[in-house]
Amino acid sequence: MLNVAICGATGYTGYEIIKILLKHPKVTIKTLTAKLDRPTKIAEVFGEFQGKLDMLCEDLVVNDLVKKKIDLVFLALPHRVSMEFAPKFLEKGIIVIDLSADFRIKDYKVYEEYYGQKHIYKSYLKASVYGLPELYKQKIKKARLIANPGCYPTASILSLAPIVSKKLNDKSKIIVDAKSGVTGAGRKADIGLIFGEVAENMKAYKIGVHQHAPEIAQELSNAAGKKIDILFTPHLVPLKRGILTTSYVNLKTKTNLKKLLTLYKSFYTKEPFVKIYDEGRLPQVQDVVNTNYCGIGIALSEDKKCAIIVSAIDNLGKGASGQAIQNMNLSCGFKETEGLL
Amino acid sequence: MLNVAICGATGYTGYEIIKILLKHPKVTIKTLTAKLDRPTKIAEVFGEFQGKLDMLCEDLVVNDLVKKKIDLVFLALPHRVSMEFAPKFLEKGIIVIDLSADFRIKDYKVYEEYYGQKHIYKSYLKASVYGLPELYKQKIKKARLIANPGCYPTASILSLAPIVSKKLNDKSKIIVDAKSGVTGAGRKADIGLIFGEVAENMKAYKIGVHQHAPEIAQELSNAAGKKIDILFTPHLVPLKRGILTTSYVNLKTKTNLKKLLTLYKSFYTKEPFVKIYDEGRLPQVQDVVNTNYCGIGIALSEDKKCAIIVSAIDNLGKGASGQAIQNMNLSCGFKETEGLL
Amino acid sequence: MLNVAICGATGYTGYEIIKILLKHPKVTIKTLTAKLDRPTKIAEVFGEFQGKLDMLCEDLVVNDLVKKKIDLVFLALPHRVSMEFAPKFLEKGIIVIDLSADFRIKDYKVYEEYYGQKHIYKSYLKASVYGLPELYKQKIKKARLIANPGCYPTASILSLAPIVSKKLNDKSKIIVDAKSGVTGAGRKADIGLIFGEVAENMKAYKIGVHQHAPEIAQELSNAAGKKIDILFTPHLVPLKRGILTTSYVNLKTKTNLKKLLTLYKSFYTKEPFVKIYDEGRLPQVQDVVNTNYCGIGIALSEDKKCAIIVSAIDNLGKGASGQAIQNMNLSCGFKETEGLL
Amino acid sequence: MLNVAICGATGYTGYEIIKILLKHPKVTIKTLTAKLDRPTKIAEVFGEFQGKLDMLCEDLVVNDLVKKKIDLVFLALPHRVSMEFAPKFLEKGIIVIDLSADFRIKDYKVYEEYYGQKHIYKSYLKASVYGLPELYKQKIKKARLIANPGCYPTASILSLAPIVSKKLNDKSKIIVDAKSGVTGAGRKADIGLIFGEVAENMKAYKIGVHQHAPEIAQELSNAAGKKIDILFTPHLVPLKRGILTTSYVNLKTKTNLKKLLTLYKSFYTKEPFVKIYDEGRLPQVQDVVNTNYCGIGIALSEDKKCAIIVSAIDNLGKGASGQAIQNMNLSCGFKETEGLL
Repeated sequence: MLNVAICGATGYTGYEIIKILLKHPKVTIKTLTAKLDRPTKIAEVFGEFQGKLDMLCEDLVVNDLVKKKIDLVFLALPHRVSMEFAPKFLEKGIIVIDLSADFRIKDYKVYEEYYGQKHIYKSYLKASVYGLPELYKQKIKKARLIANPGCYPTASILSLAPIVSKKLNDKSKIIVDAKSGVTGAGRKADIGLIFGEVAENMKAYKIGVHQHAPEIAQELSNAAGKKIDILFTPHLVPLKRGILTTSYVNLKTKTNLKKLLTLYKSFYTKEPFVKIYDEGRLPQVQDVVNTNYCGIGIALSEDKKCAIIVSAIDNLGKGASGQAIQNMNLSCGFKETEGLL
Repeated sequence: MLNVAICGATGYTGYEIIKILLKHPKVTIKTLTAKLDRPTKIAEVFGEFQGKLDMLCEDLVVNDLVKKKIDLVFLALPHRVSMEFAPKFLEKGIIVIDLSADFRIKDYKVYEEYYGQKHIYKSYLKASVYGLPELYKQKIKKARLIANPGCYPTASILSLAPIVSKKLNDKSKIIVDAKSGVTGAGRKADIGLIFGEVAENMKAYKIGVHQHAPEIAQELSNAAGKKIDILFTPHLVPLKRGILTTSYVNLKTKTNLKKLLTLYKSFYTKEPFVKIYDEGRLPQVQDVVNTNYCGIGIALSEDKKCAIIVSAIDNLGKGASGQAIQNMNLSCGFKETEGLL
Repeated sequence: MLNVAICGATGYTGYEIIKILLKHPKVTIKTLTAKLDRPTKIAEVFGEFQGKLDMLCEDLVVNDLVKKKIDLVFLALPHRVSMEFAPKFLEKGIIVIDLSADFRIKDYKVYEEYYGQKHIYKSYLKASVYGLPELYKQKIKKARLIANPGCYPTASILSLAPIVSKKLNDKSKIIVDAKSGVTGAGRKADIGLIFGEVAENMKAYKIGVHQHAPEIAQELSNAAGKKIDILFTPHLVPLKRGILTTSYVNLKTKTNLKKLLTLYKSFYTKEPFVKIYDEGRLPQVQDVVNTNYCGIGIALSEDKKCAIIVSAIDNLGKGASGQAIQNMNLSCGFKETEGLL
Repeated sequence: MLNVAICGATGYTGYEIIKILLKHPKVTIKTLTAKLDRPTKIAEVFGEFQGKLDMLCEDLVVNDLVKKKIDLVFLALPHRVSMEFAPKFLEKGIIVIDLSADFRIKDYKVYEEYYGQKHIYKSYLKASVYGLPELYKQKIKKARLIANPGCYPTASILSLAPIVSKKLNDKSKIIVDAKSGVTGAGRKADIGLIFGEVAENMKAYKIGVHQHAPEIAQELSNAAGKKIDILFTPHLVPLKRGILTTSYVNLKTKTNLKKLLTLYKSFYTKEPFVKIYDEGRLPQVQDVVNTNYCGIGIALSEDKKCAIIVSAIDNLGKGASGQAIQNMNLSCGFKETEGLL
């Protein structure tokens, strides 16, 4: 049995990791940590765990985890906080799956610009592996520090990697119009997240300055082998879980839908968690909610020169915690789908 | 034109008062106050007011309002804060409509027990008028300090006053099972109010200890001329605006529905904002949302010995701000329905 | 492996049965039936099943199921339709778990009154077992026709059985004020169920005439060994899944909360799917959604003479399909919790 | 007083017209029609109108309306049905405001392609005026047949007319990524619209084939004086009312945001219902819900070569019924904003 700790257990990603691991046959949850006024039972925070996990959320102390012989730690912590703890765990030989953005962006200057803070552990940026199994499976298997992708990037990159890898797109910017449910913003007391402000409302936000834009551009550029420009527009919509992205890709030459779909199916043929929809069908959020799947569907403009690619994920599933477990499975030699089907 | 100030303009009740007053032909909004880091335009807080009300939210300073010749002030402030300001305005000859609970409960010991704080202006409790126009219209017309009722109490009292006034209920407790939308809890950064915790959820809370219970009991006892016991159970449900109460009243003797409905229609015959539903029909939240109406419907148990009374209001309308305007209209000699139809 | 058929696969209860069975290690789904214009793949109806269950929904023909060697059939059919098919399957030796109400109510006259139609298979009423495992486990194990309880009755009965079994309630009616999410009404094109009518709305309905009332009364009377009167008020609230019941029980004598909670814990001590909440805590819908659990919490009125009992279930989980699987497990000799944790 | 009839009074657009007209000082509602099994009071359909409008919904018979001296009729009817009635009213001298699409698209072949039916009154296409006051005010003032725009087109055209009129866009397609609440699909018993399918879900639909695409293209081409290609992607999101469009316009030359905003403010300077947001701010649905306003905000891509234009309307307000009243006001010589502020 693998001994794991979940740091940041009272957030939504921490919650979802616990939920998945409780059904995982090869893992023991040994420690939960959270920043709380007093040690609190996790079942008091999430009533769902009553009778299932009788464990306190404690302060995060590295040595306590070492004493408990933790093999792997999930860092479901705010950006910047992860950065301080990840190296300490790595030094103790503990595998780190970091759900924050701290080790995702390889160019620290881009990180510093978008996250508004210094990167104090640049040396780890090289060693860290971007935890998108569909693109980096072999590296993940050997990684000690896995930078688990953001929710928007997961949906965006999976839906665009095949087309940019094949260099079918022309030089114009790829537009990613993304819509997200509210848990993507985390579980925190923020007036912009309260029901009265979110229900029966909808908005675009952070156009051109959202911190997930450079992450998407980095990975699509890697996939394409050249710089890919994206124009990323996130929207907040009134549902709890789910991301839908609608991307617009101008093509070098006219194409037909069958060919594109064949490319996508072939690209992901061995991937258990990517589903390419048949012609005429598109993924909806309800197809993937509470799962680790990413659904992808494609339509073409009338002139066949623009591909409209729609992807759907659960932002807490494939967009965060599900993917973190998938990475754990790969990194620890378990079956990739263990606990996730 | 009546000059008014709204203190606590950035909460939901403040917002709703502004919205109604912008259409009111006899009122000028002269001042908005709010506790903010810096003076902020109200249209930056509520985009809806852009182009309609170009006014800053300022700090609450009594003398500033005096200088601006305010005639009437709405206190949409937290409990306890209202208590400190109301007397100061009254001393300056400014009429106060207080949306907090500070002057609603006549027995200060009950107030102190349920609100967990000392009452420091007991002397004003006698002069204050409980602002439920359907019960206290004549007093409200002459009042200088109007204690605007709570949202649950408004729905509960209106639906039960006729039956207890006529002393049809037996000695057993009246059960009020109330369900409220989320804006009833105010516009504040509270983790229990965020969309991720409220949507697709539902809960009972504060059974037996909710601060609105003694307010309901006080007014029903007044209406009955004897002590009325209630058992009040509030529930939080995932909608923005709206309260539905379902009350269970055991009757002294069997009755029939027609008689009960006639009693209710007669009780409220002159009231413009109470609608009694015909036999077989019940009010829904969507019948009253965004209005100042209270809808009331009645059903009987099979044995005709228990009346089930359902009422619906908009918690921000008749449950708070609409009612505050109704009180202002009465207090200032305007038509009771001005700005509210 | 047990071969099962799901009749009525395109409704919400059918959907949920499929979802659970896809993870159940001892069951093979052999047939899906639905009333459709043309044979349709289940994954076209529910995108979630794409790549997981490649199966057509066919017309319901008893002999087809016999040929496919079905061992057990789930009838997720409308009331009355089940009634016609259940006997035919039983004659062929196929175990029937009927999610309709057709065999739940033992007194066919009550059934005919509340469901507005003749009962044409009264002879089966005696053989059928009411499928609430917490009350009838031994009978369910041997049953061939299991009448799976309704969603409201499951939540209501589980929350009241201990107190009436111990005869703690006085002679007055027990009030059950129940609130349900929308999927409880089924997956059908009904204008009262569309988003525009349900969202931001809330209503009481069918007071005194809801068909679940006699089912609750029947089972509580059985548990008490005497007639129990209930007053049942259902409400529709804007969420997809979840039922919350708030019941009011007048007690013969004053009691204390500890004693009541001990009784409840003891009553359900061996039950894997009932959770009694500790003093001061109450179940919420989000504690049980997407599970087969029923959460129960208790509060007392100030005078200790009335128990307020709150229960929460997922109407599609413990309130329908989860419970149906639990019944299947019992009836087929599997572990009771198989596929449900 | 203007005598009006509302045909199709039980749909959402009919409902909203009634609601607005009840507060309009110059209009009398004389007739309501609806397709119902029996004549039904409008207050039975929409409880909100109880005590406010005691009127039956009757069958639509042209001569009945003539007898009642109707001056103007709102056709809130399905496509194709409007087409049959509009000419009959016009012949009787009754002004027609048609909320269907039947007279919006000037090229009948395009209409027939997208709506899948013959256009049987082509002769009226020329006389009809496209009822977008911001573009056709003078024509609307004299029109007898006003084709009230669709909801998506209103939001899209208003947000793009200034930029294409000034010919700032290059030759590439303009992308309109639009998100709509559910009432935009009408008030009808459709399984795709029920709460269980819509809540906690989100989807793109009808990409490239939505019937509003040619309407948008027609009007933008008119505004530009040349053919404008658009790529229109509608999405369904879980809220009742509101449309948000996010449009991407590639510019001929780099521009700056101030200049663009100045253009927009100048273009709409005399328009009472269009609000251009200042730099750094974007409209949200909650800014415009329950109003006749359209909010428009703009952002630029980093390279200043692509404008991202966000617009928000209430699909039942400016997107349908509010706009219909605005058209009525213009056509009947009332103040444009009467009843709409």
